[in-house]
Amino acid sequence: MKPVNEHQTNDTTKAEILAVGTELLLGDVVNTNSAEIARMLAELGIGVYYQTVVGDNRDRLAAAFRTAIDRADVVVVSGGLGPTEDDLTRETLAEVLERPLHRDSEWEAHLRAIFAERRWGPGGGTTLPENNLRQTMVPEGAVLLPNSRGTAPGIYVEDENAIVVLVPGPPREMRALMNEQVLPRLAASQATAGTGAVLASRVLRIIGLGESRVAELLQDLLAEQTNPTIAPLAQLGEVHLRLTAHAGTRDAATQLIDETAATIYETLGDAIYGEDDTTLEAVVGTLLRGEGGEGKERRARTLAVAESCTGGLLAHRLTNVAGSSAWFRGGIVAYSNEMKRALLNVPADLIEREGAVSEPVARAMATGVIEACGSDCGVAITGIAGPGGGSEAKPVGLTYIAVTCDGETVCHRYRFPGDREVVKARAAHTALSLLRRSLRQ
Amino acid sequence: MKPVNEHQTNDTTKAEILAVGTELLLGDVVNTNSAEIARMLAELGIGVYYQTVVGDNRDRLAAAFRTAIDRADVVVVSGGLGPTEDDLTRETLAEVLERPLHRDSEWEAHLRAIFAERRWGPGGGTTLPENNLRQTMVPEGAVLLPNSRGTAPGIYVEDENAIVVLVPGPPREMRALMNEQVLPRLAASQATAGTGAVLASRVLRIIGLGESRVAELLQDLLAEQTNPTIAPLAQLGEVHLRLTAHAGTRDAATQLIDETAATIYETLGDAIYGEDDTTLEAVVGTLLRGEGGEGKERRARTLAVAESCTGGLLAHRLTNVAGSSAWFRGGIVAYSNEMKRALLNVPADLIEREGAVSEPVARAMATGVIEACGSDCGVAITGIAGPGGGSEAKPVGLTYIAVTCDGETVCHRYRFPGDREVVKARAAHTALSLLRRSLRQ
Repeated sequence: MKPVNEHQTNDTTKAEILAVGTELLLGDVVNTNSAEIARMLAELGIGVYYQTVVGDNRDRLAAAFRTAIDRADVVVVSGGLGPTEDDLTRETLAEVLERPLHRDSEWEAHLRAIFAERRWGPGGGTTLPENNLRQTMVPEGAVLLPNSRGTAPGIYVEDENAIVVLVPGPPREMRALMNEQVLPRLAASQATAGTGAVLASRVLRIIGLGESRVAELLQDLLAEQTNPTIAPLAQLGEVHLRLTAHAGTRDAATQLIDETAATIYETLGDAIYGEDDTTLEAVVGTLLRGEGGEGKERRARTLAVAESCTGGLLAHRLTNVAGSSAWFRGGIVAYSNEMKRALLNVPADLIEREGAVSEPVARAMATGVIEACGSDCGVAITGIAGPGGGSEAKPVGLTYIAVTCDGETVCHRYRFPGDREVVKARAAHTALSLLRRSLRQ
Repeated sequence: MKPVNEHQTNDTTKAEILAVGTELLLGDVVNTNSAEIARMLAELGIGVYYQTVVGDNRDRLAAAFRTAIDRADVVVVSGGLGPTEDDLTRETLAEVLERPLHRDSEWEAHLRAIFAERRWGPGGGTTLPENNLRQTMVPEGAVLLPNSRGTAPGIYVEDENAIVVLVPGPPREMRALMNEQVLPRLAASQATAGTGAVLASRVLRIIGLGESRVAELLQDLLAEQTNPTIAPLAQLGEVHLRLTAHAGTRDAATQLIDETAATIYETLGDAIYGEDDTTLEAVVGTLLRGEGGEGKERRARTLAVAESCTGGLLAHRLTNVAGSSAWFRGGIVAYSNEMKRALLNVPADLIEREGAVSEPVARAMATGVIEACGSDCGVAITGIAGPGGGSEAKPVGLTYIAVTCDGETVCHRYRFPGDREVVKARAAHTALSLLRRSLRQ
């Protein structure tokens, strides 16, 4: 392991991920490989310290190779292994490591067989193009990693300074090669032998508290965090806390996370609505099925929603939950006053007197949609998404959300910041949060 | 401009993009910001030479800053400007540039006003949390860039070695700040003064043709492309063609694009529904206003939608269009047979005889929603989004879409591949495409 600074634990293997390709550098293609490779390495307890993207340029690629080999124990490189002139990764690595390239006759035979088969397809030649011969070249002392999904093989070198791995850029090929060839080798290598560390992580999803409020409430815990580390991340309408622990085994790492998570649950209580990939709509669905939640008698209930400014987004999110037809009756998007009257039975004089964006109208919409759809619960949202339609008394972002459950209605007033789509997203998210609270009471 | 090697043209400004965040480094969040920023810089003729990702670690962030400032003329950094302890970008930049931080009283007053307004929501505080005060700090000699979408302002410094720009990590905030504040400043700066090359690009958005069909139709043009280059990119339900040209001036680059675009329009005709960021729902909105489109008498019409499997997504997309209240009457999400009967007046015996996912029911839903909402046009979608609910006769993905305009109904049958959310997305997108066609006829 390389020298570390005082912020690092000294038993961690350091990895760097390099992505090669001008299309990535110029932003025409989003680099998803580096994120995926980082997650794969974390599973082995290998922490990523840097990610770098370089274009198809030999000098800069060589410089990036040298930097990475200098500062990391494991360097994983994706891209630039294709058959064309601008694919330089293989040759540049050989140059940097000062190892000559030699031809791998086994892979050459494999490629010739593949191209011979291609005669069946339209427009295919039967002989191996000269270009593809470059894909049979391997630096001295390196291992060729057969690619089950394409013509570009991977390369694995244990150099004196670092383990260097080359994988092709197309995500499917990268994924297959990492899983079939690279990860088993890394797991058996020096890189993971002395780490004494498996990384495990968990995300706690928090609603109803801002990022700085969460940080205040967890001040002591955040100040003394080392293992697990606790990283807050603000998302639209919620806060995520990522706990990452390292330990000798997966069980030990999980135990460390369990302990810290328990303390956080004690402090934040039911502001934590779920973990990892759980969505708020999925939690609401579980509660509507009569599962989860405490206090109230557990029974299944049905739901209908009435939307004005969110325009269908709330219904869309609820129906993203597989099996939602068991509890979702229907939704009504009443975008005009006339529709609020006709479809939701909101009295015309109420709208005239209070305005469409008002608490009485939100309440009438919630009870109206229950009536129209014959559901147990109803949610109504009325607001001004903007950019037009605002006034001094009723500015853009002003929103009323009403939730009726078992005959009881709660209604809150909000002013959501942001543009039209953000106001819609915040309003729908907040409605789900209020509904969750009503269903748990 | 910094010294360049033989592979570079010597009049290009070199940029490096730095993304900060442990969630990016560990691969929990895919880094889309760097790609987006790279495209924005290309529009100014600024080429990106490196992209780097570092975690929330002060030493490594400082090292990355030093490397970037050393090798690039322009350094754009996203992330790490939040209010919590692990948001280090601002402080680390001040340290690297050896410039003390001072408090910006104007931004502080702005933040206090924002927090005071938040009192309307439940559980909200009225005072600015101590943590957020960190977001008012600016290095000496730097410019604070107001953030119209959040509490974290950007920072712009013209240091002796490079222009350094900090923008917040949330993509919406990054985008707004880049467009409103950063790009105009860079365009007026030294960085673009001597470049001698301007990149311009345009995206043509195509619906109803697959990527390989588009490639076939444009075979000759694609074979001889050099300036502009033509890059096809398949998206969910559509194909984008990105044309990128370089020339001495913006006008000259635009002219090159105009010429190639004209040839493509001749070949693909009205399969091209829009350019750049134009959405299909915006095009539909324009047609409903009685603008755009040819042939039919141009008059304004109103729309209502009935959704089963898409669950509100179609209404959501339509109401994302600013000003949609002028033509969108309402939407009904009829998720059960009973709701199709009660809200859309679909005869119960029709559903029994034909099944809820059938052409007659789709047609009855379209006319039913026109009746219920009093609109000129109606769109209905009924299908099986999965994962459950499929059968051999009616598999997951089977969808009927009916469009009624001026008394005429067209109805098509589809089988969409993909999981629940993908089926919903494809169905809603196809419905918009059919509606566009009906409105143009």
